[in-house]
Amino acid sequence: MNTHTRVNVSVVPFVRNAWYCAAWSEELSDQLLGRKLLNEPVVMFRDESGTPKALRNFCSHKLAPLSLGRRLGDRIECPYHGLQFDGTGRCVHNPHGKGTTPRSADIRAFPLLERDTILWIWMGEPALADPAKIPDCGYLNSHQRRTVRSVIHVAGNYRLSIDNLMDLGHVFFVHRQSAGAATREMEVEVTEEGDTVSDRRLSTATTGLYFFAKALGDVDGLYDNWLDITWSPVGVLRNHSGSSRLGHGRNIGAPNQEDFADQMGTHLLTPVTELSSLYFCANSRNYALDDPGVDEIWRSWQKKGLSEEDSAIVAAIQAAMPDAERLGLKPMPFLSTDRSGVRVARIIDRLLAAEAQGGTRA
Amino acid sequence: MNTHTRVNVSVVPFVRNAWYCAAWSEELSDQLLGRKLLNEPVVMFRDESGTPKALRNFCSHKLAPLSLGRRLGDRIECPYHGLQFDGTGRCVHNPHGKGTTPRSADIRAFPLLERDTILWIWMGEPALADPAKIPDCGYLNSHQRRTVRSVIHVAGNYRLSIDNLMDLGHVFFVHRQSAGAATREMEVEVTEEGDTVSDRRLSTATTGLYFFAKALGDVDGLYDNWLDITWSPVGVLRNHSGSSRLGHGRNIGAPNQEDFADQMGTHLLTPVTELSSLYFCANSRNYALDDPGVDEIWRSWQKKGLSEEDSAIVAAIQAAMPDAERLGLKPMPFLSTDRSGVRVARIIDRLLAAEAQGGTRA
Amino acid sequence: MNTHTRVNVSVVPFVRNAWYCAAWSEELSDQLLGRKLLNEPVVMFRDESGTPKALRNFCSHKLAPLSLGRRLGDRIECPYHGLQFDGTGRCVHNPHGKGTTPRSADIRAFPLLERDTILWIWMGEPALADPAKIPDCGYLNSHQRRTVRSVIHVAGNYRLSIDNLMDLGHVFFVHRQSAGAATREMEVEVTEEGDTVSDRRLSTATTGLYFFAKALGDVDGLYDNWLDITWSPVGVLRNHSGSSRLGHGRNIGAPNQEDFADQMGTHLLTPVTELSSLYFCANSRNYALDDPGVDEIWRSWQKKGLSEEDSAIVAAIQAAMPDAERLGLKPMPFLSTDRSGVRVARIIDRLLAAEAQGGTRA
Repeated sequence: MNTHTRVNVSVVPFVRNAWYCAAWSEELSDQLLGRKLLNEPVVMFRDESGTPKALRNFCSHKLAPLSLGRRLGDRIECPYHGLQFDGTGRCVHNPHGKGTTPRSADIRAFPLLERDTILWIWMGEPALADPAKIPDCGYLNSHQRRTVRSVIHVAGNYRLSIDNLMDLGHVFFVHRQSAGAATREMEVEVTEEGDTVSDRRLSTATTGLYFFAKALGDVDGLYDNWLDITWSPVGVLRNHSGSSRLGHGRNIGAPNQEDFADQMGTHLLTPVTELSSLYFCANSRNYALDDPGVDEIWRSWQKKGLSEEDSAIVAAIQAAMPDAERLGLKPMPFLSTDRSGVRVARIIDRLLAAEAQGGTRA
Repeated sequence: MNTHTRVNVSVVPFVRNAWYCAAWSEELSDQLLGRKLLNEPVVMFRDESGTPKALRNFCSHKLAPLSLGRRLGDRIECPYHGLQFDGTGRCVHNPHGKGTTPRSADIRAFPLLERDTILWIWMGEPALADPAKIPDCGYLNSHQRRTVRSVIHVAGNYRLSIDNLMDLGHVFFVHRQSAGAATREMEVEVTEEGDTVSDRRLSTATTGLYFFAKALGDVDGLYDNWLDITWSPVGVLRNHSGSSRLGHGRNIGAPNQEDFADQMGTHLLTPVTELSSLYFCANSRNYALDDPGVDEIWRSWQKKGLSEEDSAIVAAIQAAMPDAERLGLKPMPFLSTDRSGVRVARIIDRLLAAEAQGGTRA
Repeated sequence: MNTHTRVNVSVVPFVRNAWYCAAWSEELSDQLLGRKLLNEPVVMFRDESGTPKALRNFCSHKLAPLSLGRRLGDRIECPYHGLQFDGTGRCVHNPHGKGTTPRSADIRAFPLLERDTILWIWMGEPALADPAKIPDCGYLNSHQRRTVRSVIHVAGNYRLSIDNLMDLGHVFFVHRQSAGAATREMEVEVTEEGDTVSDRRLSTATTGLYFFAKALGDVDGLYDNWLDITWSPVGVLRNHSGSSRLGHGRNIGAPNQEDFADQMGTHLLTPVTELSSLYFCANSRNYALDDPGVDEIWRSWQKKGLSEEDSAIVAAIQAAMPDAERLGLKPMPFLSTDRSGVRVARIIDRLLAAEAQGGTRA
């Protein structure tokens, strides 16, 4: 029924059948890690072989958060009464009385796979969790790049952050202080392939982009600059930006690093609630691999540019949203720079509607 | 339809067709000032001639708060993508692509007028915004008075503060420490003229009121004292209090300042939300105009008396209101000191009902 | 009508016809004490003879919290306009105009009785407030015991704390650090008499429980240990725990203190709101009565064991409850250690249903 479908869409605001980043690999040590993802409390741990596991963060007995408990080999122990669960969610030990462990005491497990230093979680229909669909971020493992990572807690819906990232027209304004002026005049090309949308921007014969000119040694020289980003469902954005000596144009993985300075950006958005999200960001540069000072430049960019500037705008919009709704105001993406974001929004809406119709609440 | 009307009354808890104080003049510099007023985000700025302007604090594009942007001459620039708006809300510049600025990108402007060091905003039907209706506070400009001002953020509905101010019977109790004992026994006269209500209190041959006896040089002498307040729609209260040497009675603007020490009080309440308000207060005295020590006395009165004492009581009542409602408790204004407050409440209710009926949501 | 009854059950989540702890005697000095109990603001004070009184914490005039006012002999004075109320809630003084004090200005008083260093309040039907039903905690007055007390503000429903206390199977896990290992293997006996449920646990020939072995001078010796708790409606739990030299078994008030070290525990839970409660706890030991160092051990136990450990688990469960409900998760008390808690829950449900049916909203 139509009404029912519509209700579902509003009750289930997240596409569930998708791989989301649950954590950077390095965040999950031998301790438990509790996190709310897609409005659902999750506890993650590594078994004795180091394989990451994810369970619902509720003991079946009294609903205590398992993340407050401890890891015991391949199991986790509930902090409240010591029930133990294995990585499949099976209740395998009850220290009380006769120690029965009925199947009804088992808890839900979520597929969790580690690829390219990312822990990918699947919170939808388990049967649909196809590892082949995990986005490739192999450059994060490359020895020819140096990566700086962080996690940003955004006080806004994940779609506001996706919208922010797809629309590179905001850079000149939001990051005027942190990123500089070179990004203003660029040719824009938007393409859509399957469920993937790309926004590619190029400028030629201008001052170098961001920090790249400095990396190439000639701050005042003229460069070709590019600023590309590709979105794929649901919270995965990979971007590539760089500067090359005049006439070299856009290039990825050029052999001659004297002419090309670039970075691969990883931007993974995972909904926490409807009003908040986790933003996993990484920048993997092709230059100055061993220079901690350059690490610091990128760490500072993530802190200032991505967190204090982008996420602050997102949070301000989110905070004012109830007022906007009461006043009947809606966003109006009429700028040329909105083209790619509009396409992404349309795909997410389509995926949400499909899941609502299919009833794949999972 | 009746039901509809009643719903409107509860949904629109503010009289919109009225001038409200949006800021003291001195608060609006060459920077943007964002403020929520009557449950609606507003951004204020001065154009190049210094004329104050007020717009809805939402960019029409992505709903970013314009107050996070910057002023560029007569315009403000959105912090997110650099759209520019003039003081009428017209979108006058789009830095992207072909730079179209459709009329649908314009945003709402609010009449904002500067009078007597006050910025008055009209958030109702623009056609009804008659400058002649702005309350006269000309004494704020007088060279024969010295004014001390502040802004108090009250964690309570504006009507609780109005009620507090109209009922001068609270002074002896709430301000026992800060204002002293002389205010207890006074003759009360309540008058209503049009939409204006006055509460005037007089005592003769008593110790001097507040700080006035000290100003007149004889702390232990006997004085005539008065404590008058007048309310006009919706959040405007002007009071006059003073002491005169015995037998001189109530007087405003007496030529002989040796016999009269008084102050004109300005108390402007502007709703922020249903649960909070801005309280703009000023005291304009006729004595010791150049004495910074006396400035400090009045500044301290505003901080202690009006903020920590009055607004604390208002906030405590507001905080307990959900409990009171659940328990079926209602205020019961049965004291003789409640007479003027009851009349004010009746007029506000009448104005609210009239707007709800007329549909002047604006 | 059935519908009405069901609504009542959900609206009135507390058994009202019961004595609840409102405060420890020592908390109520000659000042006013304001506290929300059973979702209702209450103000307590002592009259001139020291007799404690409890009133609804709302002035009938403008709903100001009386607890912000002051005590004047046998009365309290409203902070806002100086109305005075006596200990029965009668409005006995109006300082304004002709000073009328209509009966409609009276406020509700609650029976409040002082017994065994506890202030017991009755917030239900006044006619049913039978002092004989006040639970006996006479040991709190005993000269043969030394008592350490505290008040814990729990960010959870009171029933979660009751559940926590009845189920002593949590001790080994939650208090692993603070209470030690001896409590693991115990024989459990659950009994129900009228509206009272007891859970009694005994271990023989094990290491001493808690701090008792140290009190008996032989930390490494073998002891008989017991851990008993009795619940009675609604928020009253009294427990007895101790260790005795091997072969002496469970004992209360043994004459020979060289063989028995024990404590009587008082655990009084009073709902504040549906999501929070006050937990009044006391431990009354039979040994080292004059040793401040042992006071400190018990104070530290209350802080670490009862507040930081128990109440933290309760708060974590409460915080995740909305997620659990959305996900359709319910607690499943299938452990052997849950037997007494299940019985208590059943009795509370029965009492709630009875009050809802009887309409004794009070």
